[in-house]
Amino acid sequence: MAESIKVTLPDSEIPRQWYNLQADLPTPLAPPLHPGTRQPIGPAELAAIFPMNLIEQEVSRERWIDIPEPILERLLTYRPTPLIRARALEKALGTPARIYYKHEGVSPPGSHKPNTALAQAYYNKAFGTKHLTTETGAGQWGSALAYACQQFGLDCKVFMVRISFDQKPFRKLMMQTWGATCIASPSTETAAGRAILEKTPDTPGSLGIAISEAIEAAVTHEGTKYSLGSVLNHVLMHQTIIGLEAQKQMALINAYPDVVIGCAGGGSNFAGIAFPFVRDKIHGKNISIIATEPAACPTMTRAPYVYDFGDTAGTTPLLPMHSLGHTFVPPPVHAGGLRYHGMAPLVSRTILDKLVEPRSYHQLECYANALLWAKTEGFIPAPETAHAITGAIEEAKRAKEEGKEKTILLCWSGHGLMDLTGYDAYLSGKLHDYEYPDADIKAALETLKDFPKP
Amino acid sequence: MAESIKVTLPDSEIPRQWYNLQADLPTPLAPPLHPGTRQPIGPAELAAIFPMNLIEQEVSRERWIDIPEPILERLLTYRPTPLIRARALEKALGTPARIYYKHEGVSPPGSHKPNTALAQAYYNKAFGTKHLTTETGAGQWGSALAYACQQFGLDCKVFMVRISFDQKPFRKLMMQTWGATCIASPSTETAAGRAILEKTPDTPGSLGIAISEAIEAAVTHEGTKYSLGSVLNHVLMHQTIIGLEAQKQMALINAYPDVVIGCAGGGSNFAGIAFPFVRDKIHGKNISIIATEPAACPTMTRAPYVYDFGDTAGTTPLLPMHSLGHTFVPPPVHAGGLRYHGMAPLVSRTILDKLVEPRSYHQLECYANALLWAKTEGFIPAPETAHAITGAIEEAKRAKEEGKEKTILLCWSGHGLMDLTGYDAYLSGKLHDYEYPDADIKAALETLKDFPKP
Repeated sequence: MAESIKVTLPDSEIPRQWYNLQADLPTPLAPPLHPGTRQPIGPAELAAIFPMNLIEQEVSRERWIDIPEPILERLLTYRPTPLIRARALEKALGTPARIYYKHEGVSPPGSHKPNTALAQAYYNKAFGTKHLTTETGAGQWGSALAYACQQFGLDCKVFMVRISFDQKPFRKLMMQTWGATCIASPSTETAAGRAILEKTPDTPGSLGIAISEAIEAAVTHEGTKYSLGSVLNHVLMHQTIIGLEAQKQMALINAYPDVVIGCAGGGSNFAGIAFPFVRDKIHGKNISIIATEPAACPTMTRAPYVYDFGDTAGTTPLLPMHSLGHTFVPPPVHAGGLRYHGMAPLVSRTILDKLVEPRSYHQLECYANALLWAKTEGFIPAPETAHAITGAIEEAKRAKEEGKEKTILLCWSGHGLMDLTGYDAYLSGKLHDYEYPDADIKAALETLKDFPKP
Repeated sequence: MAESIKVTLPDSEIPRQWYNLQADLPTPLAPPLHPGTRQPIGPAELAAIFPMNLIEQEVSRERWIDIPEPILERLLTYRPTPLIRARALEKALGTPARIYYKHEGVSPPGSHKPNTALAQAYYNKAFGTKHLTTETGAGQWGSALAYACQQFGLDCKVFMVRISFDQKPFRKLMMQTWGATCIASPSTETAAGRAILEKTPDTPGSLGIAISEAIEAAVTHEGTKYSLGSVLNHVLMHQTIIGLEAQKQMALINAYPDVVIGCAGGGSNFAGIAFPFVRDKIHGKNISIIATEPAACPTMTRAPYVYDFGDTAGTTPLLPMHSLGHTFVPPPVHAGGLRYHGMAPLVSRTILDKLVEPRSYHQLECYANALLWAKTEGFIPAPETAHAITGAIEEAKRAKEEGKEKTILLCWSGHGLMDLTGYDAYLSGKLHDYEYPDADIKAALETLKDFPKP
């Protein structure tokens, strides 16, 4: 008899509260600083760009926060997501490890991103916001917010990094299909964009530039707020539904992971799967929690913990985080969602407190593993997801060497059906790895030398 | 409390047998005829292109056929698929009808096609086949077979209709990612392809031409067989797992559909959801079963029941079916999977026997409904799926007029994430509808005038 490989959770078992790691952190987060005065800022000063109900979540230290019914209703469209045992991969690896993956690719835009997009659209709508602006790199976040805004009747404008805008026209079409406007960044719609275009008309753009534009568009237009798809505390909290579901699913089969693995760009996907387990670890559970990133953008593994801006133009508050410097332009690896100079303050904190272990991988290895995954498990992963897969395969191979029956849980953050050009480039031998010399990282960090230290 | 909308079936409840409608047909199928002699052909004569184990299924009248364990193992990757109540759509329509959809978009290639691709790859492997050839239009079938062949260690070559090959490069990349070779048809690899290229070097190709090429490539190469993604009895049977799961899921919530709806190109998706319910109807159940198609390719609604070839070159056996004539070239509607001149003999038979009611819709109406679906239910449907959605919306509106609490079940055959150019064309006002005058249909059928009648 073919064995069960999926652990499905009925709709009635969907978690009804998010988990807020701030309640359990051994070391509280350092406060964000005003970009001008460099003094700690409070909720009121964030109100120009975010609605107050989300700001309250950003600073809350409540452990559990209720998920409002209208958000739950929408989450049920695709959640609870299945937890699947990767038996075919285990077999191919000849590992005694049991590998489980939480399949976040089943959502309408194909990734975990709508978990927070739906929440942010809901709270903005409740607050009275009419329009939301945001930035997107590879397009996962922009399309998730487009979908969520349409669900709650908000206008949505997405500034998409030009190189992705040109290379991934389908992502733009996806946003349009959900009623959003998507424009290439830098654009002529903002002062920040125009300034950059004047100096470098051929720039491929960057996430940092797109953030600057989206924030400017929000603060200069009536009834408009800004939405960020990662990094911030409330965004990470909205993603914890992933790990909370996984805990329930693991309990259903009387299992508990020895290792939890997620990929981290801004940190939201990783936080989503990991933070409920970080809580267990704080309370004494013996568990290894691994965050994976591209070696070409080694924020967690090689960057210092500093105060830095979230965007290139330096308009956001200064956040305490691991950062390569806000002027750092990551090389063009295909995992666009992991090409970010900083790391969420909460994830940075868990690394400092040795609750989380970061690892980095080169893209050629990640593509090889992504193809092994597609061959064995069938689903084609996003290039970001390939970094989590690579971590899991490394652990599974280690388990084989050690002869240990480990249980590995990985977050399969999204499918790669919109990212097939990366696979094509890999298969045609056109991809290579990027080394980032220490001297270059040091240079990028020079700009921060006068910033306060967290 | 947010209400449950999904009915999930645990892995242990996956159906372990396919349902074969041939066992229950009130009128047995007329036999296929030899393309040369035009005499009924038996299993042996199909052996040049198909393995004998699949030929046995093709002609079997056993009601239930066991699904081999290795196929079940792979099906469990994405099956049982969720049955979801489209509450948001119901609300938008203000209908008293309950609309349930069977979400086949959750498979690795994003449609129902792997249900038979996995089975065909398995049986070919068991038979000793080394290479499989096939054709694909929009690419759903080609990518499903690529995935399935890789699962069972077979080589796969896909002849893709040139216009789709050029317009949908991502589909080709998907096949390559799963290790298959995908080439534009007509190609120079076959005599059939070369002959057409000589006469019309700029031809956009057609499904009929691609079938001719794939069959030629199979019969002229050692260890190579041909695989078809629809039309044939065994292909339709492999899809019945959809309807069998839906029956179990409906039973879990003490429901039974008043109306079952699927879209039909070659007929496999429709058969998949419908045939288990056709069986109930044969046994007296009062249920309406609707097959929907494009008005631009009105095989079921306007074509006669005849003997005709499955391909353009006239190399397949003559099949008893509704057909617009094998030389009919459907207008370029975006629902590529529904652009086929014929209809599966089994589906044709259920229409003749008044077990199934066919309906046709124009593409502008289908796109409008697909956008309403995306706005309410979130998931972006394939253009083919939009035809099933349109049938469901028509029924839901009728239920509203009549004040009836109908239960509608539709097969959501696949997602449209690889078909976004169609949405773009619709949103930019570039699409129009196609009328096919009776005279043109009559002319296309002229070529069949000397063929035997079923």
